[in-house]
Amino acid sequence: MIKILAKWESLSASSGIVRFLDINLRSIGQVMFQDNPLTGLLFLAAIAWGSYAAGVPRVAIAGVLAVVVANVTAQWLNADQASLHAGLYGYNGVLVGLALTTFLSPNALMWVYVVLGASVSVIAMLGTVNALKPWGVSSLTFPFVLTTWLLLLATYGFSGLTGAALPAGDVVTAFQRYEVNPLELIDLVQGVLQSISQVFLKASGVAGLLLLAGLAVNSWAAAAFALAGAILAVLAAHLFGAESELVTGGLLGFSPVLTAIALGAVFYRPSWRVAIYAMLGTLVTVIAQAALNVALTPLAIPALTAPFVLITWIFLLPRQCFEPASTATDDAATARTT
Amino acid sequence: MIKILAKWESLSASSGIVRFLDINLRSIGQVMFQDNPLTGLLFLAAIAWGSYAAGVPRVAIAGVLAVVVANVTAQWLNADQASLHAGLYGYNGVLVGLALTTFLSPNALMWVYVVLGASVSVIAMLGTVNALKPWGVSSLTFPFVLTTWLLLLATYGFSGLTGAALPAGDVVTAFQRYEVNPLELIDLVQGVLQSISQVFLKASGVAGLLLLAGLAVNSWAAAAFALAGAILAVLAAHLFGAESELVTGGLLGFSPVLTAIALGAVFYRPSWRVAIYAMLGTLVTVIAQAALNVALTPLAIPALTAPFVLITWIFLLPRQCFEPASTATDDAATARTT
Amino acid sequence: MIKILAKWESLSASSGIVRFLDINLRSIGQVMFQDNPLTGLLFLAAIAWGSYAAGVPRVAIAGVLAVVVANVTAQWLNADQASLHAGLYGYNGVLVGLALTTFLSPNALMWVYVVLGASVSVIAMLGTVNALKPWGVSSLTFPFVLTTWLLLLATYGFSGLTGAALPAGDVVTAFQRYEVNPLELIDLVQGVLQSISQVFLKASGVAGLLLLAGLAVNSWAAAAFALAGAILAVLAAHLFGAESELVTGGLLGFSPVLTAIALGAVFYRPSWRVAIYAMLGTLVTVIAQAALNVALTPLAIPALTAPFVLITWIFLLPRQCFEPASTATDDAATARTT
Repeated sequence: MIKILAKWESLSASSGIVRFLDINLRSIGQVMFQDNPLTGLLFLAAIAWGSYAAGVPRVAIAGVLAVVVANVTAQWLNADQASLHAGLYGYNGVLVGLALTTFLSPNALMWVYVVLGASVSVIAMLGTVNALKPWGVSSLTFPFVLTTWLLLLATYGFSGLTGAALPAGDVVTAFQRYEVNPLELIDLVQGVLQSISQVFLKASGVAGLLLLAGLAVNSWAAAAFALAGAILAVLAAHLFGAESELVTGGLLGFSPVLTAIALGAVFYRPSWRVAIYAMLGTLVTVIAQAALNVALTPLAIPALTAPFVLITWIFLLPRQCFEPASTATDDAATARTT
Repeated sequence: MIKILAKWESLSASSGIVRFLDINLRSIGQVMFQDNPLTGLLFLAAIAWGSYAAGVPRVAIAGVLAVVVANVTAQWLNADQASLHAGLYGYNGVLVGLALTTFLSPNALMWVYVVLGASVSVIAMLGTVNALKPWGVSSLTFPFVLTTWLLLLATYGFSGLTGAALPAGDVVTAFQRYEVNPLELIDLVQGVLQSISQVFLKASGVAGLLLLAGLAVNSWAAAAFALAGAILAVLAAHLFGAESELVTGGLLGFSPVLTAIALGAVFYRPSWRVAIYAMLGTLVTVIAQAALNVALTPLAIPALTAPFVLITWIFLLPRQCFEPASTATDDAATARTT
Repeated sequence: MIKILAKWESLSASSGIVRFLDINLRSIGQVMFQDNPLTGLLFLAAIAWGSYAAGVPRVAIAGVLAVVVANVTAQWLNADQASLHAGLYGYNGVLVGLALTTFLSPNALMWVYVVLGASVSVIAMLGTVNALKPWGVSSLTFPFVLTTWLLLLATYGFSGLTGAALPAGDVVTAFQRYEVNPLELIDLVQGVLQSISQVFLKASGVAGLLLLAGLAVNSWAAAAFALAGAILAVLAAHLFGAESELVTGGLLGFSPVLTAIALGAVFYRPSWRVAIYAMLGTLVTVIAQAALNVALTPLAIPALTAPFVLITWIFLLPRQCFEPASTATDDAATARTT
C-alpha cells in the first residue's frame, strides 16, 4: 500500500491533472481529518453508494462538483499551497454540495446554489482560519455549517428554491410521547454504522463500513475512535431517552463521531487521560446535538455538524491540560492548525 | 470644492463649535465610509427629505440628536481624538436614532431610549474596536446592530414602549404565494435607488440620489460601487424569486450596497480581481439578508445591517489574498481599522 | 475577623481537607467575585435557607455536590493552582447545580446531569479563559450560562429528563395587558432583596440579606454597589413598564446587580466617573435582561446571567477609558483576568 501511495505521490508531482485529482480526493478524506487520497477514494465510494441506494445520485454528483469548484476557487484566491495540497480548502465544499442537494428540491437554481456555496465555503474557510489564529484551534467544519445555514435559511425567502427534507418550523415544546423502543443488538449496530455514515448525510450501513475502511487505511486510531464514539453516542442517546428513530438513524451520532476522532486521534497525543477526555467530549456532543436540534426548531433548519464544532472547540481550548499531537506523526492536525 | 473644504478645515481648527459641527457631519458621512463633512451634509439632506416625505420629521430630528449625544459621550469617555474627528464614534449613533424612531411609537420614553441608545452605541463601538484588534478588521455597523437589537427586543417586555413598524413574530415557514412580478425598468430604477436610501432606513428615490451625490463628492469609486451593488442586488433578489415588494422597496438591497462599497472601494486596493470579489460578496449579502430576515422571524425584530456586517467580515478576514487599500489615499479605511 | 481568617489560612496550608473545604467555600464566594471563605459560608447559608424555605432542599444539596465535582475535575485537569485555590474553577459549577435542579424534575438522570454539568463547566471555564486572553477580560459566568443552556435545551429531546419550571416556548409578541402596579416601598424593598438573592436563583429576602452580609464581610464597596445596582434595576424596570411580578420577584434585577459589582467594585479603580459608568452599565443590563427574556421565548429556556455577561463584556472592553483596579487591593479581579 505504501508503495502505491509513493508511486501516486510521484505521479502527482509530475502531472497537474493527477495533482488536481489528488487534491480533490484528499479534500474528501479531510471531512474526517484524513490527508490521504486512498481514504478519499473510499469515502467517495461511500458517498456514491449511499446516494445511489437512496435514489438520489444527484447528491453524489453535487458533492464532486462542489469539491472541484472549491479547489478551483482556492487557487483563484492564491490560497496557501501546502494547505491546498492537503485538501484543507475542499472538505467544506464537499459537505456544502451534499447538504444543499439533500435538503433542497432539484432545479437549475439549486445547481447555481451548489456552485456559489462551494466557492463561498472557501472564503469562509480562509476567514475562519485567520479568525482562529489567536487560539491555535482548527476551523473544523464551521465554514460548511455557516455557509449552508445561510443558504438554507434564505430559501424560505426565495420562491425559486424550495426545501425537500427541511424540518418544519415550530416553537419549542417537550417532545411528546415519541417512541423509545428497547435497543436490540441489531438496532445498536444499525445506529452505530449510520452514525458514521451520517457524517456525509447518508443513512447507509454499507456506507458506514466503507467510511470505517477509509479511516483504517490511514489511521487505525481514527477508525477505533470513530467506532467507539458511535457506540457511546448511540448508548447515551438511548439512555437519555431520545427518540428511537433518531438514535438508530444515526442522527444523534454523527457529530459525536467527529468529536471522538478529533479529540482522541487527531489533536492530542494519545493517552488514557486523553481517551477519557475524548469520551467525555463525545458524550457532551450527544447532548449538544439534542440541544441544537431543539434550538433550531423555530428556524426550520438542521443542526448539521455545529454540535461537533462547538464542543470540540470548547474541549480544544484548554490546550495546556494535555500534550498536543506530535507534528511528525500527524500532518493533518498541524496543517489544520496553521 | 477643495478650496471650500480647506477653508472649512481651517475654520474647524480655530473654532470649537465649527469643529463639533464638522465631527457630527463626518459622523453622518461615515455611515457609508466617507470622512467628509460635505458628504455628511448631503446625507443629512437625504435623511431630512426622506423623513419629511414620509411624514415622520421626528426621525430626522432623532438622527441629529443621536449623533450629537454619541459624540458628546465619546468625549466624556476620552475616546481617541483622531477617530473622533473622523466621525468614527458617531455613525452608529445616527443609525440608532433613525432606527428607534422608525420602529417605535413616539412618546417620552422613546426619546429617553434614543439618548440612551446613542450613548451606549459609543461604548459598544469602543468595545468592538478593541475586540476586533487581533484581526485588523473594521467594526462596520456592528455596534448599531447590537445596540438597536437589544433596545427593540426589550420593548416587548416593557409596556412603556410599543413597536410601530416591527415585524410580527412567527415561526419560520416557506413564504407562501407571495407575488413575484416581472421586473420592469421602472421597478429596477426604484429598487436600485431605494436600496441606497434604505441604508438610512428611508424608502425614497430622491434620498437615494442625494446619497449618491454625497458619495460622488468624496469618492467616485464609492458611488460607482454603491450603484453597481444596488443593481446586482435587485437583479439577484428578483432572479432568486424574492417578494417583489421587498425588492423594489430596497429592503433586500441596502446591506449589499454597503458590502459593495466596503469591499470594492474602501478596504482593498481596487483591481479587477477585487471587483469580482466585491460583486461575489454583494451577491452573498443578498442571500444573507434573506437568511437573516428568516432567522429573526421568531424574534420579531428587523435584520438591520447585520447581513452586511457578517458577510463583509467574512470577506475581509482572508486579507492575505488581496492588497489592502493604501493608507495615503483612504483615511477612512485606515482610521477604521486602527 | 482578620485573625480568624489568618488562622484558617494557616490551617488550610497544613491540611489537605481544610484546603479543599476552603477552595469550595471560596468558589461559592466567587459567584459574586469574593475570594473569601467566610463570604462563601454566608452565601452557602443563603442558598441553604432559600432552598429550605422554598421546599426544595435538593437544590442546595446539588449546589454543594456540583462545586465539589467541579473542583475535583479541575484538579484532574491539572488546572492552574492559584486560580484553583481562589475558587475560580468552582463558581460556575455551583450555579450549574442550582440551575439544573431548579428547572428540572428530580430523578436519577437529573443527578447524572448535575455531575456531568459541573465537570463540563470546568472545561468550559478553562476554554473561556484561554479564549478571552487576547482581550484581558474575565470569563464571568459565561461557562455556567453556556453549559446550562445546552443541558436544558437537550431535555426537550430526551424523555428521561423533564422541565419543572422552564418557561413555555412561544413566538415573540408584545406582552399583553400584564399588570403594572404602583411600586410601594414594600415592593421596592422586596424587589431589591430578591434581585440580590436571584443571583443564586432564590426568591428570598432573608437570603438577600445573608448575601449582602457575605459581600460586606469582604468588601464594603461590593455590598454598596450590589445594593445600589438592585435599587436602580428595580426602579428602572418599573419605569419602563415591566411586569410588576417580575420586578418585585427580582427577575429583572439579578443580572444588573452582578454588573454593578463587576464594573463598580471589581475591575475598575473606583471613582465618580467609574460609578456613573457602572450605573449606566447596570441600566443597560436591565434592558438586556428584558431583551434576552424575549429573545429566548421561542427556545423555552431562561436567560440566566447572560445579560450580565454580555453587557459587562461590552463595558469592560473599552479598558483604555478607565484605570484598572490595582492588583494589590483586589486579587479576585486579577486572578480572574489572568
